Formats: sequence, structure tokens, C-alpha cells
Amino acid sequence: MSGFSRFTPLVNALPSTIPFVGPEAIERQRATKVKARIGANESGFGPAPSVLEAIARAAGDTWMYNDPENFELREALALHHGVSRDNIAIGGGIDGLLGEIVRLVVEPGAAVVTSLGGYPTFNYHVNGYGGRLVTVPYVNDREDLDGLLAAARGEDAPLVYLANPDNPMGSWWDADSVVAFARALPERSLLVLDEAYCETAPAGSTPAIEALIGQPNVLRMRTFSKAYGLAGARIGYAIGTIGNAQAFDKIRNHFGMARISTAAALAALADQAYLRDVVGRIAAARDRVAQIATQNGLRPLPSATNFVAIDCGGDGAHARAIVDGLMEHGVFIRMPGVAPLNRCIRVSVGPEAEMALLEEVLPKVLRTAGSNR
Amino acid sequence: MSGFSRFTPLVNALPSTIPFVGPEAIERQRATKVKARIGANESGFGPAPSVLEAIARAAGDTWMYNDPENFELREALALHHGVSRDNIAIGGGIDGLLGEIVRLVVEPGAAVVTSLGGYPTFNYHVNGYGGRLVTVPYVNDREDLDGLLAAARGEDAPLVYLANPDNPMGSWWDADSVVAFARALPERSLLVLDEAYCETAPAGSTPAIEALIGQPNVLRMRTFSKAYGLAGARIGYAIGTIGNAQAFDKIRNHFGMARISTAAALAALADQAYLRDVVGRIAAARDRVAQIATQNGLRPLPSATNFVAIDCGGDGAHARAIVDGLMEHGVFIRMPGVAPLNRCIRVSVGPEAEMALLEEVLPKVLRTAGSNR
Repeated sequence: MSGFSRFTPLVNALPSTIPFVGPEAIERQRATKVKARIGANESGFGPAPSVLEAIARAAGDTWMYNDPENFELREALALHHGVSRDNIAIGGGIDGLLGEIVRLVVEPGAAVVTSLGGYPTFNYHVNGYGGRLVTVPYVNDREDLDGLLAAARGEDAPLVYLANPDNPMGSWWDADSVVAFARALPERSLLVLDEAYCETAPAGSTPAIEALIGQPNVLRMRTFSKAYGLAGARIGYAIGTIGNAQAFDKIRNHFGMARISTAAALAALADQAYLRDVVGRIAAARDRVAQIATQNGLRPLPSATNFVAIDCGGDGAHARAIVDGLMEHGVFIRMPGVAPLNRCIRVSVGPEAEMALLEEVLPKVLRTAGSNR
Repeated sequence: MSGFSRFTPLVNALPSTIPFVGPEAIERQRATKVKARIGANESGFGPAPSVLEAIARAAGDTWMYNDPENFELREALALHHGVSRDNIAIGGGIDGLLGEIVRLVVEPGAAVVTSLGGYPTFNYHVNGYGGRLVTVPYVNDREDLDGLLAAARGEDAPLVYLANPDNPMGSWWDADSVVAFARALPERSLLVLDEAYCETAPAGSTPAIEALIGQPNVLRMRTFSKAYGLAGARIGYAIGTIGNAQAFDKIRNHFGMARISTAAALAALADQAYLRDVVGRIAAARDRVAQIATQNGLRPLPSATNFVAIDCGGDGAHARAIVDGLMEHGVFIRMPGVAPLNRCIRVSVGPEAEMALLEEVLPKVLRTAGSNR
């Protein structure tokens, strides 16, 4: 049945493509059950036991809307980061916040700078508001800071995206380079610094909060979806100047946050001992993934995240064959979308059962996929 | 600290007003604890015990993103309503869906028709996308179907909002009148039919699904926030033609739904016995609120919802004094925003403890507020 005749021209021009197909959809399409869910950079280690207790305590309150000001969570995050509550904006994961930032900044036709092969959901939102993507190729599997800077200047771009550590490659820059990049950007260009994976990054790779907190053209994004193990809760936050954090209040869905999710995030933040522990387990599992790759003749890339990009030594079709072949064995992974990154597969780390299944089936898959190489 | 220098002109022109101040904010501002939370049309009766069990079961899965296709929930809703899964779009409560609909339809300057004093969050979204609100006064405390129709035609409005039953007045139209209204609208005008309160409405006031399912200029909105008792879960849905339901896929945050919330909604839908039971308790509590109003010399309006609008016989200042006075006793209620509706207060129904507190303190408050009358 047809739709309404008068959606906006922008909406009518949008494709129906979506940023990612979920593992559930793949299960349905292929009638295969996922046994190792290591494709969406979730944390199979899960949230802290204290978080599960907080969820149980909050369940009975779910008849109430969440506080639209997110006061307690912003207060806790402010204490955690040593900033004011007014420097923090809460949103439905970084994905949700990215949509809001694009809406705040991007008018139809505006240039938006990102890396070629960078986070697809950011691109989805830019397209959704009619922005014009200007993409800068990776250099040595890292986002190219000089190239991004030149593009931002050359295009007078109102918005620039950088993920540090990067997804999908797992690479990173040291904090000083990121700060220098942010300070070199024209003040007419807003930097979205996506730090979804900062908790698992090496020391010295994440700028101190105070290094950029006073800069009106920087917004830093954090999430409870990765190391904290709460992807399904959909809680992310932005850190920026008070003016920037408050800008979200003009457009966000004030009653949009789930109450149990907010309680879970509060508990997760309070349990830094668990975070330290799980970050150690993530690091060990990264080594495990790298070892599995190496023993199969593949080259694992260094990673600052909870996943490992693995260079499979072929082209995109070869990597795709491996992704598809693994799924036939119930191992769900993903891969970068564009060349030359798409010579790699991307494996999220997880508990040993998932790692063991990967170790078991990867050689079988490579024997078949080898013919496509 | 200042914000980014280059937000869009539309964003710069937006006020920082928000649709509703939450009870938590009122508690903080006034240092008063809410004892009876009967102001946000939540359901103090809570969700079904089976829903709390489902939440407990889902807690351990919250490290995973929710299925971005919302397949299971759409499938269950399709079965419930006798439509196809493809007729259903899921969103972050009706509030979230309203924002998406406005984005799909409203370009800056476009006329959007609603009732004067109707749902503020809808207006918030219209302003947020630069729409031009055209408001039609209520007639006899009901939304004026003829007036809305005339305005839609006269303005060639791409979007028209109607709540049935209505918030904030609790009034309603019979199903035939709503269907006639929807069919009379120009096909260039999309009707957003907000049916958040349909579960508590009298028989014959909600059009059958099949009456409007084939009409490309109608989208019906439902929620788990009201009778189902899951306001904090943030799950709403739209029912419409396949083309309309799929339009959301072009712009929505595909990974935006919370996993526990989705499990809760599925369980709530499955427990129709609880829904019937709680609808009975809501009806009884409506009578209780009406009785409290009457015994205090106020006039309760008929209600098809989980709240009762009470005519306090004065002006907006008088009603405001009652709302503020009740809050001093820890009773949180709200009131309509514009005359002549704002001669009323709006009291959400709830369990007997809350009703008893209202009964106890209302006479005291009225004695003080009387002087403002």
C-alpha cells in the first residue's frame, strides 16, 4: 500500500538503505542461528553484576517516565569527569546523539567531513538531513588527521567527524595529536569526537577532558554500549561547552530515555572496579583473536577497541566470503564497507566460548573462501 | 561557556522552552518530595506482574543491541491488530514518533493544524522543524473536528493532529465521527491520530483498525506508556499503510530501542487479561477522582482516559494556585496551558493511597486558593 503523497522532497530522495543489518535479521534471512555474536562490538562479558542488581531494583519503577533532565546521571558523569553537570547532554546512545548533532548543524547541501569507510551511522544521519559527505581516505588504516583538517578548511565544513579509537579499524591517535587536530580546526567547523571505545584504549590516547572542554567547536561522545556492556540500554552522552550541551535541549525528545536504562548506566558508572576488570578481559580477548588470526595466516591489526580488524590479504569479495562463511557456522562478524579497508574482517572480542568457536571454524571457512581470493 | 558559532538559523531561532517540566525537576526546585505522582498520566497501577518477570528475564541480555527491525514486536502487534507486520513502525513512545512524523512531512513554514491547547510535545516538534502552527479552539472542551477540517483545507496543511481521546481534557469523539473526519481530510493532509488513551476509552469511540488502514493520509499512534503501565520503557508504535510505516525507516535511529523495554512491551501485549483488569481499576479510580472533585464543589469532566480534567470554576491563575498548592503537600498534578481549558486542573488516576492523599489535601488547598479566584 502506498504512502502519503507529500513527504518532504528530502525524504522522498532518501534511499531505504540502513546503516547496519542486525544479526537477528541475518538469522531470519538465512535460517541460521547465531552461536557466537561477535559482530556488533557489543560486550559479551556483559555489564557488572551490580548493574543487573540495579536493573532489578528499577523494574518496579518503569511505570514512571524518566526524569527529562537526566539530572542524576548528568551529575554522576560530571563528578566522574570533573566537569559541570551543564557540560553533559544525555542521548539514546551515540547513534541518537549523532542524529541530533547533525540536525543542529547541517542544512541541506552543507559539507560534512568524515573518513572514507568511517562510521556508517554518522553518514546515514548526514544523508538524512541532506548534508553532503566529503570523505578522506584512511592512511595506513588510520584516519588521516591532516587530510581531515585540509578538507574541513577547503570545504568550510560546519561538521567534522573523527572516531578515536577508530571503528572499523581499531586504530588510534595519541592524545596530543587529537588535541592538536581539534585546535587547528577552524572555529566554524564543529568536531564530533566519537570516543565510544576510549575505555579500552591505551594510556595516552584519549585527551584529558580539560584539554578540550572550553572549546566551542568540539563535542566529545561517550557511551555505555561498549566496555560497560550496555548496548541494549541505549545510553550515550556528549561532553562539551555548556552552550553546546544545552543546544540539545532545543530539539531532543525530552521524555525519550528509558528509566531502567538510566538506572543501569548510573550503576555501571559507579562500578569502576568492574570496568577495570572487564577492560583487562577485553585486552586478553583481543590477544586471543589476534592469535587465532595469526595461526590462520591472517594479519591482525593493532586495536585500541573491543574488536580486532584482521587483514585477510585479499579484496572485499574475499573478506565477504569469510564473513558469510563464518555465519554459516553461526559466527556473526562484520567487515568494513569500502576499499582498501574491506580487505579486512572485523571481529568483536568476547568470552572464551565464542573465541573457541571462532578458532574452530575459521580454518574451515578459509579453506572454502581461499578460492575467491 | 558559549556554544558553537554555526548552529543552523532554525536552531538559533528556537527557544529553550521544553514541553513539560518533570516532577523530579519540581522536587528539586521546590525541595518538596512528591508523595502522589498523579500529574503525568502514568499508570500508578504499574505494568503486569508478567511484564516484571519478562524484564527480569531480559536483563541478562542487555549487553546486546535490540533487533533494529523490531521484528518480534511488530509481528506481535500485527497479530494483535489483524494487520501486516509491515503496517507497524516502532518508536521511542508516541513523543519520539511524533518527532519523526514532523520530520517526514514538515518543511520550514509549512502549516500544521492542531487544537489550541492540544498536546504540547507535538507543538514542540513542529516548532523544532520550523513548521507554522495553526490552532483551532476547542468547542465544549472537545477538539473541534469541523474547525480542524476547515483549517486543514484552508491552509493546505500537510499535517493535522488529533488526539482521540483527547489530552488534556479527557474528552472524546465516537468512532464514526473520527472516521468521517479522516475521510473528509484532503489527501494532501496527513492525519496523525494520537490514540495514546484508546485502551481506557468507552466502546465505540476508537475506529476499527480496518476502517483507516488503507488510507495513505492517516497514521495512528499507540503506546505502552498509559494503560499498559510502561511509560518509563518508551515504546510506542504507529499503524498505517505499508508505505507510511516504511517511511520511518529512512530517518529513524535503527538501533534506538532499548532491549529490556522491547521485551517488556511484548510481555505487556501478551497479557491482555491484566490490561482488562487494570482498565477496570482505572475506570474506578476515575470515578473516585470525580467524587473527590464533586465533594469539593468542583466539576469533573467526563473522561475516556486515565486522568480527569476538573473544572475549578475560575481562571488560569486560580487553577495554577491549586496545582501549586497541591504540590506543597506533595501531590503532583498538571493543568492545561491555555484558556479556556486552563480553568481546569488535570489529575491522573492512581492507586487508592494517592487518591486518599488528594482527598485529604484538596480541601486545604482550595481554602487558600479560593482567594485567588
